[in-house]
Amino acid sequence: MSISVGIIMGSQSDLTVMQEAAEMLEKFGIEYEITVVSAHRTPERMYEYAKSAKGRGLKVIIAGAGGAAHLPGMVASITTLPVIGVPIKSSNSIDGWDSVLSILQMPGGIPVATVALNGAKNAGILAAKLMGAFSEQVSAKLIEYQEELKNNVLDQVTQMKWKFNNSFDEL
Amino acid sequence: MSISVGIIMGSQSDLTVMQEAAEMLEKFGIEYEITVVSAHRTPERMYEYAKSAKGRGLKVIIAGAGGAAHLPGMVASITTLPVIGVPIKSSNSIDGWDSVLSILQMPGGIPVATVALNGAKNAGILAAKLMGAFSEQVSAKLIEYQEELKNNVLDQVTQMKWKFNNSFDEL
Amino acid sequence: MSISVGIIMGSQSDLTVMQEAAEMLEKFGIEYEITVVSAHRTPERMYEYAKSAKGRGLKVIIAGAGGAAHLPGMVASITTLPVIGVPIKSSNSIDGWDSVLSILQMPGGIPVATVALNGAKNAGILAAKLMGAFSEQVSAKLIEYQEELKNNVLDQVTQMKWKFNNSFDEL
Amino acid sequence: MSISVGIIMGSQSDLTVMQEAAEMLEKFGIEYEITVVSAHRTPERMYEYAKSAKGRGLKVIIAGAGGAAHLPGMVASITTLPVIGVPIKSSNSIDGWDSVLSILQMPGGIPVATVALNGAKNAGILAAKLMGAFSEQVSAKLIEYQEELKNNVLDQVTQMKWKFNNSFDEL
Amino acid sequence: MSISVGIIMGSQSDLTVMQEAAEMLEKFGIEYEITVVSAHRTPERMYEYAKSAKGRGLKVIIAGAGGAAHLPGMVASITTLPVIGVPIKSSNSIDGWDSVLSILQMPGGIPVATVALNGAKNAGILAAKLMGAFSEQVSAKLIEYQEELKNNVLDQVTQMKWKFNNSFDEL
Amino acid sequence: MSISVGIIMGSQSDLTVMQEAAEMLEKFGIEYEITVVSAHRTPERMYEYAKSAKGRGLKVIIAGAGGAAHLPGMVASITTLPVIGVPIKSSNSIDGWDSVLSILQMPGGIPVATVALNGAKNAGILAAKLMGAFSEQVSAKLIEYQEELKNNVLDQVTQMKWKFNNSFDEL
Amino acid sequence: MSISVGIIMGSQSDLTVMQEAAEMLEKFGIEYEITVVSAHRTPERMYEYAKSAKGRGLKVIIAGAGGAAHLPGMVASITTLPVIGVPIKSSNSIDGWDSVLSILQMPGGIPVATVALNGAKNAGILAAKLMGAFSEQVSAKLIEYQEELKNNVLDQVTQMKWKFNNSFDEL
Amino acid sequence: MSISVGIIMGSQSDLTVMQEAAEMLEKFGIEYEITVVSAHRTPERMYEYAKSAKGRGLKVIIAGAGGAAHLPGMVASITTLPVIGVPIKSSNSIDGWDSVLSILQMPGGIPVATVALNGAKNAGILAAKLMGAFSEQVSAKLIEYQEELKNNVLDQVTQMKWKFNNSFDEL
Repeated sequence: MSISVGIIMGSQSDLTVMQEAAEMLEKFGIEYEITVVSAHRTPERMYEYAKSAKGRGLKVIIAGAGGAAHLPGMVASITTLPVIGVPIKSSNSIDGWDSVLSILQMPGGIPVATVALNGAKNAGILAAKLMGAFSEQVSAKLIEYQEELKNNVLDQVTQMKWKFNNSFDEL
Repeated sequence: MSISVGIIMGSQSDLTVMQEAAEMLEKFGIEYEITVVSAHRTPERMYEYAKSAKGRGLKVIIAGAGGAAHLPGMVASITTLPVIGVPIKSSNSIDGWDSVLSILQMPGGIPVATVALNGAKNAGILAAKLMGAFSEQVSAKLIEYQEELKNNVLDQVTQMKWKFNNSFDEL
Repeated sequence: MSISVGIIMGSQSDLTVMQEAAEMLEKFGIEYEITVVSAHRTPERMYEYAKSAKGRGLKVIIAGAGGAAHLPGMVASITTLPVIGVPIKSSNSIDGWDSVLSILQMPGGIPVATVALNGAKNAGILAAKLMGAFSEQVSAKLIEYQEELKNNVLDQVTQMKWKFNNSFDEL
Repeated sequence: MSISVGIIMGSQSDLTVMQEAAEMLEKFGIEYEITVVSAHRTPERMYEYAKSAKGRGLKVIIAGAGGAAHLPGMVASITTLPVIGVPIKSSNSIDGWDSVLSILQMPGGIPVATVALNGAKNAGILAAKLMGAFSEQVSAKLIEYQEELKNNVLDQVTQMKWKFNNSFDEL
Repeated sequence: MSISVGIIMGSQSDLTVMQEAAEMLEKFGIEYEITVVSAHRTPERMYEYAKSAKGRGLKVIIAGAGGAAHLPGMVASITTLPVIGVPIKSSNSIDGWDSVLSILQMPGGIPVATVALNGAKNAGILAAKLMGAFSEQVSAKLIEYQEELKNNVLDQVTQMKWKFNNSFDEL
Repeated sequence: MSISVGIIMGSQSDLTVMQEAAEMLEKFGIEYEITVVSAHRTPERMYEYAKSAKGRGLKVIIAGAGGAAHLPGMVASITTLPVIGVPIKSSNSIDGWDSVLSILQMPGGIPVATVALNGAKNAGILAAKLMGAFSEQVSAKLIEYQEELKNNVLDQVTQMKWKFNNSFDEL
Repeated sequence: MSISVGIIMGSQSDLTVMQEAAEMLEKFGIEYEITVVSAHRTPERMYEYAKSAKGRGLKVIIAGAGGAAHLPGMVASITTLPVIGVPIKSSNSIDGWDSVLSILQMPGGIPVATVALNGAKNAGILAAKLMGAFSEQVSAKLIEYQEELKNNVLDQVTQMKWKFNNSFDEL
Repeated sequence: MSISVGIIMGSQSDLTVMQEAAEMLEKFGIEYEITVVSAHRTPERMYEYAKSAKGRGLKVIIAGAGGAAHLPGMVASITTLPVIGVPIKSSNSIDGWDSVLSILQMPGGIPVATVALNGAKNAGILAAKLMGAFSEQVSAKLIEYQEELKNNVLDQVTQMKWKFNNSFDEL
């Protein structure tokens, strides 16, 4: 499989959050590229990145940014590819509200698929779901992952059984 | 092309907002089905809808709901298809915040691609972008649409020229 | 007395908060069961848990969850038992607002008895109050507890007297 | 059946919202009393009402109030009965947040079962759920009501079928 | 001078904040009493405290509380004395908003003079200002205090002069 | 009695809200003056007003303003008189939050006695409570007013009795 | 004087708000150009507009936009001219918070001079103040304008005198 | 070049934030003065500072303050110079919202150029942009600074290349 997802972020300091997207893509066997693209500090680079993305074979772009986060929306305005936006709670953020609203509240015509604050992990899974709608291979891995999530809960059920003699572990 | 998008909403009263998604899908020539599925009033129907969606050929589900909006997230937990969530500002909503946060802030593992409050139009376009990543036909229509958006702005530029003698209409 | 309260939570990590509900139930001599049930990771288990709860003799369910917390509302949509919802401030929560609004703002038809953010202690007491409305034994313990709360304050009044010579300790 | 629910509100102007609680109780065949009790304008009356409630046979109190809403919490501090609080969006409210937080965020020891903003309908249903946990008659009506909610959705599914030829009406 | 200010708080844990009120009253030579009075845990004590306050010679009451803070408003509903409310950011508070709104947003008829979150110092000064409107002695101390505040700033001006050679220290 | 309360507001458009303060003062037989003083448009007038207030015999100042409301806090920084601040929800306000926070969150040293959003009526009553702490005549009227508030509630109790045959009108 | 201010807005629908900026510039005798430039619908036009602004003689750019408002920040990232941002409360805005935070919370390196929600009038005046710092002609008009604001207040003082016999019209 | 920017702050404790403005001005070779001016503790000093600023040759004032921050707005009401406001998140702030709204939401007639919470760095750059609109020397440094920002991003791109073998470092 060739590179189908681009992960970009406004600053290297966003990497701690954004690498969770990369980890999920690896889990689902999806090839990706990763780099820093700043809407505000490198507007031309951002334009070129977004403009060339489809031609380079990408299927979806994951873009994370904090504060007045313009990267996901601006990229979405340039490419026809779906863009997943990850709001990041950066240091001088007002509790993350700035980043959430700057990414979510896009005007009619230019959607960004927004995930939870710092939700890069979910951005990676969402990209896999997009891919999986057209790939049986990815789809099969998503079903495995659902099973894995379920088993994690069932493990917790078992652990709680050891802790409480009145734990409920049927079903 | 067969039906590839399912549009569901928590109540018929959400239709005023949600039909904008349908209109956009028609614009992009994407077949869709539309119905009411309530997470709270018909939990079994919701489960069956989500469980059967992929098998019935859907590629993406658009789910809209207001207040403590659980429909998009619950559907996303059952299917491996990508789910686009539309927060709706309903009558007793606290300014829409309840719906936005109930859809956006999904836990790790279960993403919902959230669009703006009442942003059903963008949900339709986002679905088209997902399809377009794998269909040259849809992709071509998305490029036309970008052109259309641009031309709307240029028309406004011209109209403003008539209103103000100091309007700037170059570029 | 048989098991009359079910305490469930979306993840084992919620246990630190949720065990305060268990402690209160023990204080009031009410039998309970406790386990992990995730709306998003184990939707079938959640359905079965809620569906079987009344038949298994439960009188009330206490459900805690963080972020876009769907567990309390979904359980309330399946069972006719009263459901007490505990919003939990989890790590990537937006200051707890997401959890509070996802649980509180339920649509007409499907109530959840919501308590304060991280208010599992109050959830336990509220369950006791429900039981106490129909059990003189529990009701008597609630009166004792009221007395206990009052005496804690009077102890603080006395301690403050030692600290300040102008403390007011009458009444 | 004797009177088992007390509906109180801080002012007559809250009646438009609060009578939805009364209507639901009538639907479930639960006897109730209804009156105005103001925490701030009639503190003694509030005290007496709360103090005498259990002795007069009430099983649950529904209390609605707007702004800095102290009625539900103060009543809960006096009686051992469960108190359901209804935040009301009154005229000079700050979007209802004041009422929601004044009722929801009770300190440890004194729970109020809070429902959604203006959610008096749900307060009535919640009271029925509490009663239903101990009464097969009420419980049977709650099951009927669940059925009714479900049928309302299915009617909407049918109506949508008439509107859209691509409506989905299976399941 | 006899005791003219009563400082009360909902819990001993509020003392860290509330003692700043006491310190300011001492600075202005105003006699006060201080104690714990809980609206929720000791409603009768609260009633008696408020009811007897004027008769015992108090001129103003300072009441601090956190979360769904009902103490200031309830006391204000019982006494004709002015009540100064101090919102306190307690541990499970939603960023202090609950306490602020529960105290500030009192309904027409029952005012509470609200100060900033954790603003017990200002509550003490405000009490002094009330007293000072009728006492030349207190008024003189308030003028001194204004001077003191001004001199603190002028000292900072001087210190900044040492730090920056381009500091502006005229005026 | 001479003029003891000054009512000022940032703009004539605030009069609709602020005249409720005047009406309450008239009810309590307290002489007042009323005028427009803008912190931003007439800073010198504001300074002179605040500086001369005590000398002209005022005991308390009520100041109302909307948006970034600086009038109450600035006046409080100049005079030693107590200042009651009335946040006003003006046209381009962000739901009143701007005005509330600009008045409430004063720094240590400069208190403003803040009342609810648009709470000019309560500002008038609060001024009367301040006066009443030192005047038996005003204090007597405050007791009458408490009685009046109580009787309004009792009238509502009676009216509700006519509406509902299950109204509760004892106590 | 040549054109020194560029007024741009994301959509023609913003004109109702934005023309107040134009009116103020006319009042201060400052030449301006006005047009529609959309960051999302015409990213290239936006880039060209911002890139060419300084060369065309502009001294300052006023940019207004609603929702996830990226226009002011993106323009500020491209030009070295000062950019004044006007948050606009558009139809599906979440009470204007989205627009305010998207414009205000710019990352370090790329400032936007943000004014109040819908504050285009102030954007015009702020542009005049920037110009006035370097032009005695504009500066003189700003002093006149200050006088005008003051006289408006004094007129209101006089009008209030006619309404209230206890109006205060000295100073 | 003579002193053209005045940096003022409400308290010495704001210096940690505000010195970033000074550092940026030094970077751009702009002379400034710096001092403490408190609106609330030294209202006369504030008046004199603002009144004399233009006469002393200043072109722009940067004013930072926390909580109910009145300094930037009051200074802007007195001088015709442009005022840049820096909201500061101080200790008892409600998450910075108080400071942001007290500075941003100025009434029509009195603009403050507001930057992000704690955004003193951007205040310094904004002042340079104002100066640069009229000075080729400053303007040249702003272009260098844009280049510097861009190069920082390109360095991060290179560093990411070392970390990830699938990093994207073209463009």
